[in-house]
Amino acid sequence: MKTYFDCIPCFIRQALDAVRLATQDPGIQETVLQKVLSATGNMDLKQTPPAMGQVIHRLVREFSGNHDPFQSVKTESNQYALELYPLLREMVETSAHPMETAVRMAIAGNIIDLGVSSFVSRNVIDETITRSLSEPLYGNLEFLWQAADSAETILYIGDNAGEIVFDRFLVEQLSCDKITYAVRGGPVINDATLADAEESGMSRLVKVIDNGSDAPGVILDDCSDRFRQAFETADLIIAKGQGNYETLSHMEMPIVFLLKAKCPVIAGHIGCRTGTPVASRARQENAG
Amino acid sequence: MKTYFDCIPCFIRQALDAVRLATQDPGIQETVLQKVLSATGNMDLKQTPPAMGQVIHRLVREFSGNHDPFQSVKTESNQYALELYPLLREMVETSAHPMETAVRMAIAGNIIDLGVSSFVSRNVIDETITRSLSEPLYGNLEFLWQAADSAETILYIGDNAGEIVFDRFLVEQLSCDKITYAVRGGPVINDATLADAEESGMSRLVKVIDNGSDAPGVILDDCSDRFRQAFETADLIIAKGQGNYETLSHMEMPIVFLLKAKCPVIAGHIGCRTGTPVASRARQENAG
Repeated sequence: MKTYFDCIPCFIRQALDAVRLATQDPGIQETVLQKVLSATGNMDLKQTPPAMGQVIHRLVREFSGNHDPFQSVKTESNQYALELYPLLREMVETSAHPMETAVRMAIAGNIIDLGVSSFVSRNVIDETITRSLSEPLYGNLEFLWQAADSAETILYIGDNAGEIVFDRFLVEQLSCDKITYAVRGGPVINDATLADAEESGMSRLVKVIDNGSDAPGVILDDCSDRFRQAFETADLIIAKGQGNYETLSHMEMPIVFLLKAKCPVIAGHIGCRTGTPVASRARQENAG
Repeated sequence: MKTYFDCIPCFIRQALDAVRLATQDPGIQETVLQKVLSATGNMDLKQTPPAMGQVIHRLVREFSGNHDPFQSVKTESNQYALELYPLLREMVETSAHPMETAVRMAIAGNIIDLGVSSFVSRNVIDETITRSLSEPLYGNLEFLWQAADSAETILYIGDNAGEIVFDRFLVEQLSCDKITYAVRGGPVINDATLADAEESGMSRLVKVIDNGSDAPGVILDDCSDRFRQAFETADLIIAKGQGNYETLSHMEMPIVFLLKAKCPVIAGHIGCRTGTPVASRARQENAG
């Protein structure tokens, strides 16, 4: 997906949120904002939004000297999701359709996205879970069921810390031995990295790899050979969240995107209303 | 008031709204966004937000070749406000406190601010009027009543088209012959100019001058000698809206600000909650 004009004010807001978390020094905050404004002004809008996100968050980290501004927020998200885990697992297992409930939980977890909002409260997470169990999904799950059934290898590309705990329900419903779970190669926003795979318990369930990149999405040219090989050889790819959608929606691959369409640009690209839970393959006609 | 970091994403959003109204050409839209990002990155944040607004909207007009992107929106706002005028005037005149109701109407009209939102619906205007008649005002009106009573000259600095019709109620309650009503010197956002003073009927009530500047506020150094003289010699200044507050709140002058505090930065500077109707002198301790 290209970068739309509406992404640009959002980049600046996101940079401000991140640099405030990275440092209390207003001089550094101003410097980073200036650098981000300049970089955004020179951006090629044919690139995907996470390409700019990568540049922005590198600037935040470089000038603040804070290697991982969202570290404590990520740990807190993991801990809260782990608190919820036993109850939610029981809800999945006792539901009439555990697979579908697991998908709905995985999508609900995508609300924990600090690229879209500077803060996601526990109340918002709780409400999103409740709503996600019953509200209509955009797309349908038939392709996912069929592809998961016949696949020998599934690459599950995670998105955020906290959310990764919600992915466990779906991973547990599918065959764990088929699945490789991929996280980002380095800290960017609150995206899950190897540390979050450990904290969330995901590492104990399935093989976890990192993609070698610090973009908040999957920019294949920036990823490690190991990740690219896993990506190219997977029979099914499950890609969580907006950043993965933005970077992969144009690809002719067996990908299922699971996300909350939290921003109007992405909702418009998908063809649904803002806030909709999405379980869908890419709409090829919208790609690019 | 200085420019806060939170103003910066808002500048970019405002530029995008304006350039979309100014031209349908995506190439020009992108060029303007790039210029605005660059100009914002080089801005001195000790300046007030309208100083940057002036630069942004000059870029929009220059590159789009559209001298007044908001012209039709301004005329529509004036027309809608004039449709409401007879009923609202009756409400003012039959109310228990016509002066206070007139102030509340003037503040309600400040919702028609396209610097804050890209669109203000008739529903929002109607709801704001209804709410404004009863909700608590921040500040108090004693200073206004006393100063208006003893003043020989009152300078009433308007803000937006449409809103200028709502200012008529207060102008009519005060002594028209004391009042000079000031508008912007040229088009910027939907701020009222001489054309709007004509369309709204304000010109038939009181002397109207323009301030000689195309900033969306009052930057005195950029204003005409005639306006500055009116400003410096007025016994009372009534200043409408956020842009006038942002540029004048630090001044030690007999100024009463009437506005809806529509953005969190200004609400924070005033010390009230976002959305509050404000009728207040500057809080000197917050200035700068």
